[in-house]
Amino acid sequence: MEDLQKISFDKIEITGGFWKRRQEINRNTTIFSVENRFRDTGRFEAFKFNWKEGADVPKPHFFWDSDIAKWLESVACILQREKDESLYRDAREVIDDIAAHQDENGYFNIYHTVVEPDNRFKDRDHHELYCLGHLIEAAVAWFNATGESDFLETLDRYIDYVIRVFVVERSAGFVTPGHEEIELALIKLYRLKKDKKYLDLAMFFLNERGKCDPTLGNWARGMYNQSHLPVREQRTAEGHSVRACYLYSAMADAALETGDEELLEACKAIFDDIADKKMYITGGVGSSHHGEAFTVPYDLPNATAYAETCAAISLAMFAGRMQLLERDAKYADVVERVIYNGMLSGISLDGKSFFYENPLEIRLQDRTKDVSVNDGERLPITQRLEVFWCSCCPPNVTRFIASIGDYLMSANDDEIYLHQFMPYTAAFDGMKITMETEYPVNGNVKIRVRGAKGKTLFVRIPGWCGTAGFTTSRPDCDLHPGEAKGYAKLPVAEDDFTLDVDMQMEPLWIAANHNVAADAGKVALTYGPLVYCAEGIDHDFPLFAAKVDLRGSYTKTFAPEYDAPVFVFTGSIPADDGKGLYYNVADLNGEPKPVNLRFIPYFAFANRGESDMQVWFLCQ
Amino acid sequence: MEDLQKISFDKIEITGGFWKRRQEINRNTTIFSVENRFRDTGRFEAFKFNWKEGADVPKPHFFWDSDIAKWLESVACILQREKDESLYRDAREVIDDIAAHQDENGYFNIYHTVVEPDNRFKDRDHHELYCLGHLIEAAVAWFNATGESDFLETLDRYIDYVIRVFVVERSAGFVTPGHEEIELALIKLYRLKKDKKYLDLAMFFLNERGKCDPTLGNWARGMYNQSHLPVREQRTAEGHSVRACYLYSAMADAALETGDEELLEACKAIFDDIADKKMYITGGVGSSHHGEAFTVPYDLPNATAYAETCAAISLAMFAGRMQLLERDAKYADVVERVIYNGMLSGISLDGKSFFYENPLEIRLQDRTKDVSVNDGERLPITQRLEVFWCSCCPPNVTRFIASIGDYLMSANDDEIYLHQFMPYTAAFDGMKITMETEYPVNGNVKIRVRGAKGKTLFVRIPGWCGTAGFTTSRPDCDLHPGEAKGYAKLPVAEDDFTLDVDMQMEPLWIAANHNVAADAGKVALTYGPLVYCAEGIDHDFPLFAAKVDLRGSYTKTFAPEYDAPVFVFTGSIPADDGKGLYYNVADLNGEPKPVNLRFIPYFAFANRGESDMQVWFLCQ
Repeated sequence: MEDLQKISFDKIEITGGFWKRRQEINRNTTIFSVENRFRDTGRFEAFKFNWKEGADVPKPHFFWDSDIAKWLESVACILQREKDESLYRDAREVIDDIAAHQDENGYFNIYHTVVEPDNRFKDRDHHELYCLGHLIEAAVAWFNATGESDFLETLDRYIDYVIRVFVVERSAGFVTPGHEEIELALIKLYRLKKDKKYLDLAMFFLNERGKCDPTLGNWARGMYNQSHLPVREQRTAEGHSVRACYLYSAMADAALETGDEELLEACKAIFDDIADKKMYITGGVGSSHHGEAFTVPYDLPNATAYAETCAAISLAMFAGRMQLLERDAKYADVVERVIYNGMLSGISLDGKSFFYENPLEIRLQDRTKDVSVNDGERLPITQRLEVFWCSCCPPNVTRFIASIGDYLMSANDDEIYLHQFMPYTAAFDGMKITMETEYPVNGNVKIRVRGAKGKTLFVRIPGWCGTAGFTTSRPDCDLHPGEAKGYAKLPVAEDDFTLDVDMQMEPLWIAANHNVAADAGKVALTYGPLVYCAEGIDHDFPLFAAKVDLRGSYTKTFAPEYDAPVFVFTGSIPADDGKGLYYNVADLNGEPKPVNLRFIPYFAFANRGESDMQVWFLCQ
Repeated sequence: MEDLQKISFDKIEITGGFWKRRQEINRNTTIFSVENRFRDTGRFEAFKFNWKEGADVPKPHFFWDSDIAKWLESVACILQREKDESLYRDAREVIDDIAAHQDENGYFNIYHTVVEPDNRFKDRDHHELYCLGHLIEAAVAWFNATGESDFLETLDRYIDYVIRVFVVERSAGFVTPGHEEIELALIKLYRLKKDKKYLDLAMFFLNERGKCDPTLGNWARGMYNQSHLPVREQRTAEGHSVRACYLYSAMADAALETGDEELLEACKAIFDDIADKKMYITGGVGSSHHGEAFTVPYDLPNATAYAETCAAISLAMFAGRMQLLERDAKYADVVERVIYNGMLSGISLDGKSFFYENPLEIRLQDRTKDVSVNDGERLPITQRLEVFWCSCCPPNVTRFIASIGDYLMSANDDEIYLHQFMPYTAAFDGMKITMETEYPVNGNVKIRVRGAKGKTLFVRIPGWCGTAGFTTSRPDCDLHPGEAKGYAKLPVAEDDFTLDVDMQMEPLWIAANHNVAADAGKVALTYGPLVYCAEGIDHDFPLFAAKVDLRGSYTKTFAPEYDAPVFVFTGSIPADDGKGLYYNVADLNGEPKPVNLRFIPYFAFANRGESDMQVWFLCQ
């Protein structure tokens, strides 16, 4: 079969509903909020290269280039859809600054020009290649949006310098970057420019990784940055989760571009390791704040969940690439899990503030500990912030939401895969595909495909969906729903082909595999792609004591503030008031006290002030 | 009513059973094991004052005096019962060393003589007064055991120096010690010598505590060392748990000696705060390793439980004092909870190695995390050690077990209170009291009281005990069991009075109050005073996934290695193999897989190598 190619977001217009609203908030509020916070903190000023010891401007950090690069990429993705003079002007100024301050030899990095110019390419963990990677992604997006190629040309000189220093002369102080990103960026650039030098450099960094002697110290720190094994020998997700999934994304890209079966096998094994053993129900990964890292299988604590917003995004990136390599809906299932839950929880409903980490449980009581006594104890965050010192997540969210269309479909000459459900119009290869749906409010989806007669349409049946009904404009259509690993296979028999999909969407109680200690004996509520939580603000008892009644009744109400339903279920708490700290269960007279439990979408937690929150509940 | 006085351990001989065996192990193995480890690490050598910069002997630490002092006290408690030339000689040598190296002004401290002689009494956290307190306790025990008073006289000169520096001249660099201990030691000495200067100095340290300006820095660090409020205003257990309970013990002692009602009220409130909100089912306290401290109410995590062995001991010390102040069995209940569980788990069955911290749950899987990735993550201990750098717990266990008789009874001219159950013979005030029992194997206890006609006997009915039957040698005896706050009140009608108590002892499933998040939906097994746990070594499934069947059958077998029964209960684990990481509970076909769960006494965990361990279980 011919390879599938991603239909990129510029071919698709999201026309309404849940994601259209998120894109509007992103375009009208978030992009400016991030820009303003970055301006307040000196990140834009840093591109003027005015800092020196004693200067009255903030000292740049060595990852500030990447923060602004992601903002630039976000702006480009927004400009792709519609003009905005203000955004264009501010972005253009940064691009001009980059060209103005580029070294004669092509090098560009703020920190290693104004703060440590003598230490260029000496410290693997100083993010120079990571920053270049994000600049490349921004330049590609900028070219696609504006047609202006000067940004790409600026970076091309830098890339030539990198090739000289790393590959030809091998004079750099390290071989592979301490934080992956440049690999996937180079392959993205290769796809645009078709110049093999970009792919070759990406493959150089991929091929060298893990070959270094792990005893050599800092530049080969091992598992933390996936340098413990050559990439083709890696089979499990290890180390810092964002670094990891950026690497795995590049490996998948490389497998698609080169047909490298060993890379593909590694990617498949690693993906399954994540999806089967190391992923929160929200799609969050990197469960430990120690190293922001993947840990051991099934180690998914809820209250201390790190699950960085960037890590969720990076998992969607990896899964989105895998859905081109294997025709299996498990990849799109993970994309969906991430975008409706662990990624979206990273941003407030008003689009102005962000979570870096995304816990699955909050107990405010724990936060009343006296820090002078409980020295050094780390209590996870309970409220979103507008900017962080390490502010990778905010512009990652803005670029992701602006380009979420990238995850919707893939195709080749014979096949069209529809991975996600939202209202859109897509036009490519002489075809026009439209989707109408209120998803995730309900599971009814109307699809119209024009100009695709003779091709085969594959429509994903989500993993959460028990039964789905299909009605086509050709009653005699030969339906094979569910045949192709989670995709309904539908021959397109007409030039103007329509399809109604009716996915049964109802609240489901989900359990975790019995190896997950944190969720033992517990259930989580889902509705379609949405994971739910309850917040203390809606309840006058400790959430952890409540047992939901799996056979009880419930009410469902559409909540416009969430573009999704909220649910109230019956449950109970033990009638142990007055029983002291420990009591014989046989002495418990009286029935458990009935309570109502109000569930809201997980992505919407912590939008009403600090509150207890819980995803996993005891059940009866 | 007249005050109750403790009947001290030297009046009581434990004649058999569970505790006799622990005392034999302590006397035959542990005391020598601790001595040898302390010798290996240079703690004895330090008393020769040979260390100087560059010397080939270990540099003493500022709490080494207290380690050896507790060993000395343990030796004295053992010698109280029987002669041992070797122990006597080794202890005597240390006592002579102390006298030989005492300053002319009376001061004695190894570290602040050989390492920092210029910084005496300058740093509140350098444990000088804490070390003196333990030396005082050792000297009192030594005098009681041997009749030799020179050790007491040596320390008396030091105490006079402390009075001069702290009380008269107020020239010390701080007012109250950073680690309490000297207060209770001084009151113990006061009780022996009846010299009011000791009580006055104890009251000085108690009265000054918490009066200091908490902004003054190091010497008034606030809650961590209970300096946040004057002691009479304290109502909750706060800060470092050993420091705290040593203070509360001294407050209780002072309340008994002075009749200070405000101190008594503070002690009662603090005790209830611990017993009702901050104590593990094992009697462990100080749930957080951050500050080894009490935290907020109901914060009792199992896997990260700190619950230092010394903290359990200190809680027993506090509760043992409270049982003299209030005629309420809740205090003796806590003593019992501690001695059979959270204290005893601190030492291995062979008496050679120790836990500093005592977790209630171990998951070895968590320990496979790569520490180079999960930098800085703290994984609680899984195996006992023979010696620690900070080795306060081992000699605290040896002195506690050697003197456990201190907790058995209290009396005044009219009343005799029997708090704990074990075979013993006690002789005091012309009376002889004997107890015969196999407790905690069963709840049958035979009591014989001679020479107490006309007095009232109070026998504790343990909190765990639903029903207890009483049969006396005088069938017409006017029994009032349960009248006196958990004690059966029994008039002693004969000179030779016998009493059979039949406490119904059966395995009980205990729940924690619904405010305890860590135990929500779970139960723990107890049998009499013993808390039980299960270990991974006996099971081929993850313990956390297992649900015990509360209505299931069980087998009970006496295990001589534990002097206690072990139980096997039926339970189940979910039939979710092959269901993936998350699954719809409605899709779970098949019954849960039945399993057997083997429970052993908690105190005996980690005696068969590293293993998973769990106290609290899901139930069905």
